[in-house]
Amino acid sequence: MKEKNFLSLGKKLWPLNRSLTGVGVRQTLNILKKYNNRLKIIKFKSGKKVFDWTIPREWIVREAWIKDDKGKKIVDFKKNNLHLVGYSEPVNKTISFDQLKKKLHFHKNQPKAIPYVTSYYKRDWGFCLSYNQFKKLKKNKSYHVYINSKFKKGFLDCAEVYLPGKSKKEIFFSTYICHPSMANNELSGPILSIFLSQWIKNIRNRKWSYRFIFIPETIGSIAYLSKNYRKLKKNVIGGYVLTCLGDEREYSFLPSKFKDSISDKIAREVLTKNKKSFIEYNWLESRSDEIQFCSPGIDLPIASLMRSKYGKYPEYHTSLDTFGRVVTIKGLNGSFKILKNIIKVFEESLFPKAKIKCEPQLGKRGLYPNLSKKNSVKHDTRLIQYFLSYSDGQNRIKDIAKKCRVSIKKILKIKKVLEKEKLITYLQ
Amino acid sequence: MKEKNFLSLGKKLWPLNRSLTGVGVRQTLNILKKYNNRLKIIKFKSGKKVFDWTIPREWIVREAWIKDDKGKKIVDFKKNNLHLVGYSEPVNKTISFDQLKKKLHFHKNQPKAIPYVTSYYKRDWGFCLSYNQFKKLKKNKSYHVYINSKFKKGFLDCAEVYLPGKSKKEIFFSTYICHPSMANNELSGPILSIFLSQWIKNIRNRKWSYRFIFIPETIGSIAYLSKNYRKLKKNVIGGYVLTCLGDEREYSFLPSKFKDSISDKIAREVLTKNKKSFIEYNWLESRSDEIQFCSPGIDLPIASLMRSKYGKYPEYHTSLDTFGRVVTIKGLNGSFKILKNIIKVFEESLFPKAKIKCEPQLGKRGLYPNLSKKNSVKHDTRLIQYFLSYSDGQNRIKDIAKKCRVSIKKILKIKKVLEKEKLITYLQ
Amino acid sequence: MKEKNFLSLGKKLWPLNRSLTGVGVRQTLNILKKYNNRLKIIKFKSGKKVFDWTIPREWIVREAWIKDDKGKKIVDFKKNNLHLVGYSEPVNKTISFDQLKKKLHFHKNQPKAIPYVTSYYKRDWGFCLSYNQFKKLKKNKSYHVYINSKFKKGFLDCAEVYLPGKSKKEIFFSTYICHPSMANNELSGPILSIFLSQWIKNIRNRKWSYRFIFIPETIGSIAYLSKNYRKLKKNVIGGYVLTCLGDEREYSFLPSKFKDSISDKIAREVLTKNKKSFIEYNWLESRSDEIQFCSPGIDLPIASLMRSKYGKYPEYHTSLDTFGRVVTIKGLNGSFKILKNIIKVFEESLFPKAKIKCEPQLGKRGLYPNLSKKNSVKHDTRLIQYFLSYSDGQNRIKDIAKKCRVSIKKILKIKKVLEKEKLITYLQ
Repeated sequence: MKEKNFLSLGKKLWPLNRSLTGVGVRQTLNILKKYNNRLKIIKFKSGKKVFDWTIPREWIVREAWIKDDKGKKIVDFKKNNLHLVGYSEPVNKTISFDQLKKKLHFHKNQPKAIPYVTSYYKRDWGFCLSYNQFKKLKKNKSYHVYINSKFKKGFLDCAEVYLPGKSKKEIFFSTYICHPSMANNELSGPILSIFLSQWIKNIRNRKWSYRFIFIPETIGSIAYLSKNYRKLKKNVIGGYVLTCLGDEREYSFLPSKFKDSISDKIAREVLTKNKKSFIEYNWLESRSDEIQFCSPGIDLPIASLMRSKYGKYPEYHTSLDTFGRVVTIKGLNGSFKILKNIIKVFEESLFPKAKIKCEPQLGKRGLYPNLSKKNSVKHDTRLIQYFLSYSDGQNRIKDIAKKCRVSIKKILKIKKVLEKEKLITYLQ
Repeated sequence: MKEKNFLSLGKKLWPLNRSLTGVGVRQTLNILKKYNNRLKIIKFKSGKKVFDWTIPREWIVREAWIKDDKGKKIVDFKKNNLHLVGYSEPVNKTISFDQLKKKLHFHKNQPKAIPYVTSYYKRDWGFCLSYNQFKKLKKNKSYHVYINSKFKKGFLDCAEVYLPGKSKKEIFFSTYICHPSMANNELSGPILSIFLSQWIKNIRNRKWSYRFIFIPETIGSIAYLSKNYRKLKKNVIGGYVLTCLGDEREYSFLPSKFKDSISDKIAREVLTKNKKSFIEYNWLESRSDEIQFCSPGIDLPIASLMRSKYGKYPEYHTSLDTFGRVVTIKGLNGSFKILKNIIKVFEESLFPKAKIKCEPQLGKRGLYPNLSKKNSVKHDTRLIQYFLSYSDGQNRIKDIAKKCRVSIKKILKIKKVLEKEKLITYLQ
Repeated sequence: MKEKNFLSLGKKLWPLNRSLTGVGVRQTLNILKKYNNRLKIIKFKSGKKVFDWTIPREWIVREAWIKDDKGKKIVDFKKNNLHLVGYSEPVNKTISFDQLKKKLHFHKNQPKAIPYVTSYYKRDWGFCLSYNQFKKLKKNKSYHVYINSKFKKGFLDCAEVYLPGKSKKEIFFSTYICHPSMANNELSGPILSIFLSQWIKNIRNRKWSYRFIFIPETIGSIAYLSKNYRKLKKNVIGGYVLTCLGDEREYSFLPSKFKDSISDKIAREVLTKNKKSFIEYNWLESRSDEIQFCSPGIDLPIASLMRSKYGKYPEYHTSLDTFGRVVTIKGLNGSFKILKNIIKVFEESLFPKAKIKCEPQLGKRGLYPNLSKKNSVKHDTRLIQYFLSYSDGQNRIKDIAKKCRVSIKKILKIKKVLEKEKLITYLQ
């Protein structure tokens, strides 16, 4: 069931011409909304200043092709939206091969791959094609290049799913929605995020709140932070950038700038328990929105979770990054399991705080033997006392177990009792 | 002299029927007051809320016995107050052996011992007897059980001895006064505490203030803290729970939850100097009022000092815990010496603070050679300077000695000079 | 050029009768002012309280000599101002050899040396002479001692050179101006300080502000601090006491009380780079104004820089501490070079702070490729991102280089870019 959905959502999102802005992003978000009705669109107006940046105009493309001298379309945006350089300006002219060549992008060493190229912040135009396609072009002919695009004032579209939990403290996930038809370095992130958000929605009585943001990379996280960073600084206790999670290669993990935040600890714990080797990158390999989340003055404890890291696998940023070749059901399932396990660990991670000064009267709650005789107080009763003595809002249950020198299982039993009796509250 | 007093006080306190509340506690406190007239009674009214607890009613017992079918008293509270379960409700009826048996407490494996049993917080009644006594009961006879007790609104009685010193910063001792006739796990604590308080009273010009509290265990420390914890948090620099200090077995020490507080350091130093091995327990062995003193939000640096730890010696909580069998003059004397040594170390432990910004003018105080010649400044003058440079209220004299790389003896000489010249003050 | 100046300034300052106060100090400061016109005199009135001290009266000496029974001047202040005990009160009488002897100071083991002796804070008088001179005195003759001195209300004269830089954060130097004719333990300090201040004045666009104070030892630093310590605590990021820097022996360094302040780190770095062994003393060897600067409540990060440490070389505090014998051009030059290197390191030591929250838009500044293609982002662009992520005002450039795992050279290149683009500011 879930497997089918991963792929069927992937199929729907695949052909859309995502970019920083525009119809493709809106269509993407509208489709995602069908998978979790809590998804809320957040719009930033073109021209708005967000920290150092300005929200760009919307880019609209109707048609884009190259015709040969016989009028035959030899490169067509309709066939693959990677053929058009992102944010290309309009053009309509007949040019020589030499002029055309300057505007063409291909990878000689990946002759079948259409590369992914954008020119977001400087007006330009261009086409991308495979080296094999390029080789077929005739040098002494002329070519008709046509791009029917325009830029208009509009909006940068982002979205978020906020799932309130018992605590306002939240776990934060960020994924991006600005790449056209590529499977691992784009669609694996939103697909897993939306299904994960739906899965979390169904966790009854979840402890933490969860937030997923779907944003164009960089400009989107900056726009979102410019509006929300104070709130996030107050509430976020952990979180991750989700990207490149669909392949079957090794898991990889890029810790936050702080190296040993709760996000870092829990990701390491879960990946270690997974019993397959994983790569731990270093902050100096960060390339995505974690740069914004960990920047001075923002300082959120956000790490990154991936399988093959962006930039490290051959199909990255080309038309070869497809479902089937790179992203598989097995790959997505594995990552989904890891993500669920991380959430499970967070859900189990409480930071108890004693509600009552001094020891509570355990006897009136049936937690202390009424008849006080030698050896009548059981180890569990003692554990209640020690647990409470460490319930200062600084220790996870796990840490308390370690300090009490008992198993997690044991300490969870005590936790349950203390919760029932309303003797502890949690960091919130 | 002192030896006799230990025992003679012990004899007076032994027969009193101490419990959480009631005549026995009041008699105990009145006797203690004769040994230190600074002892002040503190009363908490029945029904008063103290944090999570409620002050119980007073328990009054006039008579309690079991008669056999021939009218012979076979168990009598007058002979040993351990025979009656603490806080027993009144009863007066003739019952079968089988019915009686359910209300009897004995230790098969300690056939001569009357166990100590209470039922403070749930209405119940019962008798304690030795297994040897129990074995003599006839199974086919009936028994008359009679408990003339009552509960009335009254007070929980505590007491404190406060001995102001030059500084308001205080060393805090807590001991309990709620156990009936048992020598080590009860009387050793109040006996040593009251004599120690008297001994401290006679320390002329003591640096620190001292506070001893005499409280029923748990409810007493909670009641006391509910009223005083803010003041204690401000002033207490160290302290100990005093219990089970009368036997001749190994000393034991249970550090505070903070593991390396000044109380922990000094107890370790003194016990190490004592040249006999001692047991250092762990916070996870805490069972007494230190749980309250170290609880989150209270966080006082209170450790526990014992010889045989409560619960760890065979006579614990039985009628075998007697003077002679468990508690001896030698045992009490040893502990008293340790306690005096701890106090001596505290008295020597100052946390100097320079009174004057920059170096004081030592010359006008005769501390610097008037005639400044090569090598005319002695090492001691230099030490004055270095001592002052470390007098930031964070270092003990001992720590300053270490930083200055000189002996304690040397640094104490400098301290004296600086005191005389009023160039330093102390943490206060 | 510079060499000549060192010596020519030394010659001018040499004969002046410096002391805590008086004409000699004023003449000294007036001469120094000619070498840096930014020097500003700061006066403290006699009788004024400065922390624990009182500003003394001015000491004025017109004449001081000992005549033998034949009227021949055998000791004359005019020949060497070390002959007169500093702050000697007036005297005019004929006394026996035995009476005279009590007022004479000499070093048997340095028969040619006139010792340096003062009696600042207790009224006294006396003469200093070489042991060789002393040996010539006839025991059965009488002597005429004459000191034409007086004390009058006046001022303690200090001076400072403040050189504002781009930042208000400052590097602080202190040197003393209260010793009469001695070269290493006095003149090397003010000479190097004034030339260094002049050298710094000529550093265009210096990052930090610099402050040099010229003060009588102890009383001067205390007076200065009493007026300025709050300002210094706010602005001083590093600094040194400069003394005994003119000889050719090993360099020595006495770290601040804090052991690893930025001043300590940079002095160690520069002395280590100098490739000659140097002595690192310990706080327990501090003897000069660093005691004031590091005293509790002042707590400035001030270390001391020396060649032969005061008190550690044979000519110290005698007439043998001369230009030529102890202080040489080579010695002064060496120290001057070290000081300049320290300043260079400070000038290079920036504590970057990102000006913009989140990543700045590098593309619009030409720092990010307009055309985003696989592998189009260079390592340098990444370094910009990491550099910014560590620009929290806590790390030196050097520390950031280490965190980014690149050379200083590389990181300085990035710094330049970020400065140019106004993307970072610095601790100020």
